[in-house]
Amino acid sequence: MTVQQQATDARVAAIDLAAATRAEKDRALLLMADRLEESAEEVVAANAVDVNNARAAGQSEAMIDRLTLTPARVGAMADGLRQLAALPDPIGDVVRGSTLANGLELRQVRVPFGVVGMIYEGRPNVTADAAGICLKSGNAALLRGSGSALSSNAAIVAVLRKAVSDAGLPADTIQLVDATTRDSVKELMRARGLVDVLIPRGGADLIRTVVEESTVPVIETGVGNCHVYVDEAADLEKALAVTINSKTQRLSTCNTAESLLVHAAIADAFLPLVIEELISAGVTVHGDPRVAGYSADVVAATDADWRTEYLSADIAVAIVDSIDDALDHIRRFGTGHTEAIVSESTTATRRFAARVDAAAVMINASTRFTDGGEFGFGAEIGISTQKLHARGPMGLPELTSTKFIVTGNGHTRG
Amino acid sequence: MTVQQQATDARVAAIDLAAATRAEKDRALLLMADRLEESAEEVVAANAVDVNNARAAGQSEAMIDRLTLTPARVGAMADGLRQLAALPDPIGDVVRGSTLANGLELRQVRVPFGVVGMIYEGRPNVTADAAGICLKSGNAALLRGSGSALSSNAAIVAVLRKAVSDAGLPADTIQLVDATTRDSVKELMRARGLVDVLIPRGGADLIRTVVEESTVPVIETGVGNCHVYVDEAADLEKALAVTINSKTQRLSTCNTAESLLVHAAIADAFLPLVIEELISAGVTVHGDPRVAGYSADVVAATDADWRTEYLSADIAVAIVDSIDDALDHIRRFGTGHTEAIVSESTTATRRFAARVDAAAVMINASTRFTDGGEFGFGAEIGISTQKLHARGPMGLPELTSTKFIVTGNGHTRG
Repeated sequence: MTVQQQATDARVAAIDLAAATRAEKDRALLLMADRLEESAEEVVAANAVDVNNARAAGQSEAMIDRLTLTPARVGAMADGLRQLAALPDPIGDVVRGSTLANGLELRQVRVPFGVVGMIYEGRPNVTADAAGICLKSGNAALLRGSGSALSSNAAIVAVLRKAVSDAGLPADTIQLVDATTRDSVKELMRARGLVDVLIPRGGADLIRTVVEESTVPVIETGVGNCHVYVDEAADLEKALAVTINSKTQRLSTCNTAESLLVHAAIADAFLPLVIEELISAGVTVHGDPRVAGYSADVVAATDADWRTEYLSADIAVAIVDSIDDALDHIRRFGTGHTEAIVSESTTATRRFAARVDAAAVMINASTRFTDGGEFGFGAEIGISTQKLHARGPMGLPELTSTKFIVTGNGHTRG
Repeated sequence: MTVQQQATDARVAAIDLAAATRAEKDRALLLMADRLEESAEEVVAANAVDVNNARAAGQSEAMIDRLTLTPARVGAMADGLRQLAALPDPIGDVVRGSTLANGLELRQVRVPFGVVGMIYEGRPNVTADAAGICLKSGNAALLRGSGSALSSNAAIVAVLRKAVSDAGLPADTIQLVDATTRDSVKELMRARGLVDVLIPRGGADLIRTVVEESTVPVIETGVGNCHVYVDEAADLEKALAVTINSKTQRLSTCNTAESLLVHAAIADAFLPLVIEELISAGVTVHGDPRVAGYSADVVAATDADWRTEYLSADIAVAIVDSIDDALDHIRRFGTGHTEAIVSESTTATRRFAARVDAAAVMINASTRFTDGGEFGFGAEIGISTQKLHARGPMGLPELTSTKFIVTGNGHTRG
């Protein structure tokens, strides 16, 4: 079946889904969860095919670990669906409402987008996750997963579709898009009018391609060249804790810090401490010439370092002469994801928060907090780094549009 | 100067503008208004050049009327700017906020987009309007107006830039983009990273081109193939009033009704009345074969009629056998702008409102009410017909993005 045909079927499913009540959707989510657990053996067996292929292809153990499903991991997928059922339904929320001077009743109400296309790499658990989030927000999902998870994704989607259908909602609420070819990504990008929004999740190349080539509206996610700026008025202990946590708490996430900017006035006090702690944590410090003066272990930074999202045990460190120099540096090299300042000065933190152009600003807190779970959203479909529609961690409301419903009694415009 | 250079200058201006207080922005808006009035003579003289060119090119009197500025019309532009100054500032509004379990203080705050590109046709008053709305919402504006209003727009922008600068904000908050060539539109569409959002306002061709070719995120505006559906349970008097008003109150606007769908069960009672009234109002009725049976004055409708946004004294009329047939028709031919139902049945109005996929649904009210002014927004930059970011009339908040500001005390993630 072509993507075009799948999208057409999804549009039909989306009509009923948009009118489904929360009770109907939650019943489907709970049945999806139960059936996944009941089918854990089949899903794990299907996953073994992918894992064997990955091994035969000589993939790294880290990649194979991410790909591997166990009954416990299938159970975690089911629990994720149950948590979604417990979350409030955004659909029907009245975002704005008033009674106009002429008596017309105006309500702006949350409605689903309709059809959401997800393009993602990596772990097969994203399949259940994305399907659940789309269903809860009333959207039909076209899921284009990784070619390395073909067999796993097919097994998961077969179980989920049957459960959705048995729960009385259209099976085409969830469809898997052919992942054996790049053509399916192109077809999704061209399905304007059939697909309402595309969400690419994965590497920078995938995201750039989709953003530049798609005629379907896109929500850009995830590239994070995040900075920690240690101001002259920083508390050294907080600065150390925030820097180390931002860099090392997890290396490969988009909200991990990749650069550290230190105010010149505090460099003597702070840099020896932080360089030592970074290095003892196994992090390679790439520094500008002034930073290199503080330790023989500092590697010389090149211009490329300032713009690199390492996703590894590396950090670029620069000394800046003022908060505005820090802001200029971030403006030049940042990706608009998360920027942190450590400072006891309200003047400095206000200026930084007002002038930094990013989805999230952390004041005396780790960049690692930019996360739907940490923010208490209960579910996260990704972290938007664009300004249109959604910015930062996206929960269920970010997967909706709105509709004005205006009620009159034969009202005409004069 | 290239569009790229202008956009770069706009980005610099946008940094200060984003941090400007409401008081600073309102002072600029009021000075812009005063200066426009003081310069009315120069602006009208500059406009005369455009008007003479239009006459020499043999433009229609209607087009020339839309182009022409008088001191009174310049005064109306100034009043528009004063009204903007009186509106609340969306910037800094806390959209969502909470204190997390770990004590982190989370605030999601409205911030400007940064740089907004407007591509528009027609009346030169849009220039002052768009500049004012962008400034009030903290955005730098790149204005690409009509080639027919070159001299008028240059005069208006010169006055506005001087006023903005004299009020202490960057002159590059407002810039006019070369309208002598289509290349400037292409350059705007390619200025990803420099321009944050593009808003095309004009004909369907312009909007389609921008939507399909722009790599800069776009807010699609305005094409309206709006329907009035008269249900079997309609009150005939309300149905008549709503239909006539939706079609004839103003012919050339996007919220004007272009099609009428009548339930078969009420056709005998309603169609003779409405056809007579439409025809006596000078409207040509294009009907399907069943509708043609009601009057010799009905012109046979072709398939093209159902998809045409006439913007003229024409209406396409069809009989449908059920509310679901009406919904199917609208799904097939509608543009997602405004759809109206006339019915006394709550079952019918609930079903219609839930299932019709449009920016606005009118229940027993004219389609003409879909308008920022009518909705009480105080200012309108256009009517979005897309689902991402903004849908329906866009006021000041729709010209903003958000930023999460998270305040801690050395918080790290465990």
